[in-house]
Amino acid sequence: MRTDYCGLIDKRFLGQTVTVKGWAHRRRDHGGVIFIDLRDREGLVQVVIDPDTPDAFATADSSRNEYVLSITGIVRERPAGTANSKMISGEIEILAKEIEVLNAAATPPFQIDDENLSENVRLTNRVIDLRRPAMQYNLRLRYRVAMLVRNYLDKQGFIDIETPMLTRSTPEGARDYLVPSRVHAGQFFALPQSPQLFKQLLMVAGFDRYYQITKCFRDEDLRADRQPEFTQIDIETSFLNEDEIMDITEGMARHVFKEAIGVDLGEFPRIAYDDAMYYYGSDKPDLRVSLKFTELTDVMKDVPFKVFSGAANMEGGRVVALRVPGGAAFSRSEIDAWTQFVGIYGAKGLAWIKVNDASQINETGLQSPIVKNLTETALKAIIERTGAQNGDIIFFGADKAKVVNEAIGALRIKIGHEKGEAGGYFVKEWKPCWVVDFPMFEYDEEGKRWNACHHPFTSPKAEHLELLKTNPGACKARAYDMVLNGWEMGGGSVRIHQADVQSIVFDALGIGEEEAQNKFGFLLDNLKFGAPPHGGLAFGLDRLVTLMTGAESIRDVIAFPKTQRAQCLLTNAPNVVDEKQLRELHLRLRQKVEGTVG
Amino acid sequence: MRTDYCGLIDKRFLGQTVTVKGWAHRRRDHGGVIFIDLRDREGLVQVVIDPDTPDAFATADSSRNEYVLSITGIVRERPAGTANSKMISGEIEILAKEIEVLNAAATPPFQIDDENLSENVRLTNRVIDLRRPAMQYNLRLRYRVAMLVRNYLDKQGFIDIETPMLTRSTPEGARDYLVPSRVHAGQFFALPQSPQLFKQLLMVAGFDRYYQITKCFRDEDLRADRQPEFTQIDIETSFLNEDEIMDITEGMARHVFKEAIGVDLGEFPRIAYDDAMYYYGSDKPDLRVSLKFTELTDVMKDVPFKVFSGAANMEGGRVVALRVPGGAAFSRSEIDAWTQFVGIYGAKGLAWIKVNDASQINETGLQSPIVKNLTETALKAIIERTGAQNGDIIFFGADKAKVVNEAIGALRIKIGHEKGEAGGYFVKEWKPCWVVDFPMFEYDEEGKRWNACHHPFTSPKAEHLELLKTNPGACKARAYDMVLNGWEMGGGSVRIHQADVQSIVFDALGIGEEEAQNKFGFLLDNLKFGAPPHGGLAFGLDRLVTLMTGAESIRDVIAFPKTQRAQCLLTNAPNVVDEKQLRELHLRLRQKVEGTVG
Repeated sequence: MRTDYCGLIDKRFLGQTVTVKGWAHRRRDHGGVIFIDLRDREGLVQVVIDPDTPDAFATADSSRNEYVLSITGIVRERPAGTANSKMISGEIEILAKEIEVLNAAATPPFQIDDENLSENVRLTNRVIDLRRPAMQYNLRLRYRVAMLVRNYLDKQGFIDIETPMLTRSTPEGARDYLVPSRVHAGQFFALPQSPQLFKQLLMVAGFDRYYQITKCFRDEDLRADRQPEFTQIDIETSFLNEDEIMDITEGMARHVFKEAIGVDLGEFPRIAYDDAMYYYGSDKPDLRVSLKFTELTDVMKDVPFKVFSGAANMEGGRVVALRVPGGAAFSRSEIDAWTQFVGIYGAKGLAWIKVNDASQINETGLQSPIVKNLTETALKAIIERTGAQNGDIIFFGADKAKVVNEAIGALRIKIGHEKGEAGGYFVKEWKPCWVVDFPMFEYDEEGKRWNACHHPFTSPKAEHLELLKTNPGACKARAYDMVLNGWEMGGGSVRIHQADVQSIVFDALGIGEEEAQNKFGFLLDNLKFGAPPHGGLAFGLDRLVTLMTGAESIRDVIAFPKTQRAQCLLTNAPNVVDEKQLRELHLRLRQKVEGTVG
Repeated sequence: MRTDYCGLIDKRFLGQTVTVKGWAHRRRDHGGVIFIDLRDREGLVQVVIDPDTPDAFATADSSRNEYVLSITGIVRERPAGTANSKMISGEIEILAKEIEVLNAAATPPFQIDDENLSENVRLTNRVIDLRRPAMQYNLRLRYRVAMLVRNYLDKQGFIDIETPMLTRSTPEGARDYLVPSRVHAGQFFALPQSPQLFKQLLMVAGFDRYYQITKCFRDEDLRADRQPEFTQIDIETSFLNEDEIMDITEGMARHVFKEAIGVDLGEFPRIAYDDAMYYYGSDKPDLRVSLKFTELTDVMKDVPFKVFSGAANMEGGRVVALRVPGGAAFSRSEIDAWTQFVGIYGAKGLAWIKVNDASQINETGLQSPIVKNLTETALKAIIERTGAQNGDIIFFGADKAKVVNEAIGALRIKIGHEKGEAGGYFVKEWKPCWVVDFPMFEYDEEGKRWNACHHPFTSPKAEHLELLKTNPGACKARAYDMVLNGWEMGGGSVRIHQADVQSIVFDALGIGEEEAQNKFGFLLDNLKFGAPPHGGLAFGLDRLVTLMTGAESIRDVIAFPKTQRAQCLLTNAPNVVDEKQLRELHLRLRQKVEGTVG
């Protein structure tokens, strides 16, 4: 029987006989003695096998990397000068008395400590990949985060209630994963995109405080940070307003960061959506970067430079500056690269001014191809409003507001990350915030209609109820996002609990009564039977843990993830199925697919 | 802001001003005063509204059942003689100062305290049904059980690791739920029947102790106690033998029962599978019933009564007695009903002897139509072996062992439950046990092949390795079931961790190398790279909580269950989907289904 984990044996064990079980991580012969670093989930311990114990020595001699061994021996101090301060067990070693091979191992496809593996190789050999200390750490941290969330919410009176995985397809938002029914020919379940409707119904049922850490599913074309199945920390409460909900969940985030990784997040500043767009061009600002936009639209209406005046006079146009302290030293090639970069977001170019002498509002003081096409008033406004100092650079964005916000917002992050630590405008810290006062709707130019920014069950602010009918674009929602270092960690809202308000919102969204009844009837019907005021929030667990571990991809915090083509390389899922299975499900394939039977 | 939950206000609050929020459970006018029982998840509190507070009185007067109210008032003692000792708040009432209607409510489809509802009505109106105190209790107990499991396993070093929901279809055991892939035409994911292969792979990856409380899926024709999606407490460990695994999980069960419902389960007896069949005819004996089978096969070979001698001489035949103390008083119609009952299990009749005088081994002492056709030796053996006393009845089963075990096993339970409390052979207690030493294989008469009793990854006992090839039927497995009051709570095994043993077991099961590779290749491949000895267990959470709550059906411990026809009456899932959705999934329906588009 194992007495202890390898990685936890330290000097307190000196002189004791221990039995450890684990994997031969490395084996080396040195001076007629065999050394085996034995690995288990807690780490490594060095085992010394002496020829004086001939049975153990022979077993050690025949063992290879990744053999599973049971080793009994005495803990002793390592010889002077050989201690390893990076390991808990670094000051001791085990002098083996007995070794048993619990299982042999074929040569693994790669060394456990190889750091230069393609993701393809790692995912194909995921089981071996999971032995790597980084993956062990990531999944254990993920577990710890989940348990901290559970225990925090438990103390706050929340109850985990499971909602169905096989549920109703309501085509809106993302694409559903469908599950054909065998019993009901031609009908389908859908896997949930979120438990949204069920958690609201649980509030109507009176459970008061609900949470769930649950899988959600979206059949979307995958971006780098998405998975077909992902895990959500889903929360809903009754009788609380947005401030109370934010307080509880902010407390949760602070608790988790403190207990899991020792980070004190402090109080979260709250930033109105309009301010976030105004200063950062983004509703998830990375506050580690201190650079801010400077609004210039008003002073650019009359300048000769058509790019600026055109944008300033355009409906929904915007002109902004982004001052970067010390940026006059940026090279031409750096500026060229950033010009290309903002092009990705639709910007047609990247104007700039290097401030050589801020006291000279002319082509001598301000080095730039565009200075001669700007008025003195405009130039003065630029220098004054940005607070530019000698040696700074000022970048400009001028286009439709959406393009400016996205392009200059992305540039702000990029320069901040690349240059900010040296330049003093990036702090390597955790910078959370709340973004609040979201608009209810955003206008879909193509569809010529209003869409819900959050979802159609989000409550408008009480004082904006009238705007629903007269000016939907100006109507603000009781919605909030938790943002950390430029990532959306979670988002939520106070919901509509009154059937008449829900009808008006559906009207604004152009959702007719029949459509609403067909899609959400079971919610709407139940709102009538005494729905309490309620609201909640959902966090993306995968992304939260990715941020906390510093992993490069959410795939590094999921045991068995899918590739970006939605495949599991370990099991080769999806795969073809028997014709018999399809027949039972009343289905046939549209085309014969290679490899199918029948 | 709410200051307190309704159901938790008691005499400690006397004189305090409180604000409560909840549902108007009942309203009555009495002596010019209005009484409202306000309900939240913690229970009821009585609110008194006096005409002296005219605004509050008017609001109360216009409120109907299930209105959502916010009420502020002063806690005072109830008038003498009106206290209700069944409620925490039974000694106090709130004298309302202010009432606000947070939401009106349409007349609900039924009264919350109506106990006589059909399940159909309840499931169609599930949200209202969930307001009933019994359902609130059930789901909160379910949550508490899950948290107790989590905290117990956490202390034991277990880590919750999520395994995929979208995985590979491996057609064996039950039918898979399939999920068509949009990206990979003609291919399908399957929803997991259990995380079995993944949890074994996590052991190979070195995580040492894994658990998960997770949804599993089986597309089977449903019996009363099954759901298409069900929740499993799934556990796997490395380096532990069956005794150690049983100790940990028995400790878990004891902890959960003690903390959740105050029940001390004590030590679990361990019963060998063969003994369980011998004494109870069942591998999940209900030990609350103390009745046992008496083996008679050996003494019935020569009796004139052909039913007994035929069975005794048949290959695989069995003759048993079931003595029921005091049963001579059973009526003819009771015995007739039980005769019909055993017919369900294939028994062709139900022979019996009433013991009038055990000292007279003849038709006077033993009242029964069959006595004259039994030998004196046989009759003596019956009386001696059963230990029959005057006034007892002895029932008999004689047929193939399977029929005898099922029929007389079921009779044992039925009589035990119906008559045992009065008769002294039923204790109304919690009676857990382990059933161990299961056979590896059971013979499939139709398929003429051996099937795995547990699953094909179950390890044989080390001392039975040779039997795998020579006598599979005699080979015992390192498998164990936890049984409680006749229900299988959980089952598991030590797994095969050596690839060569796995091959021999596949051989015994008639699974060829190609089939094995195709179905389980990703497990087999990884077993080669240093699999540790490992084993585990899975518990059915739904059934566990059903037992603990005393609910009639597992549907009473699931928030949103499916019917026995695998439908959700609340959301009307499954439903038809758009032709566009099918097209994207490369599918068409075999037949036009009513209601489909296109």
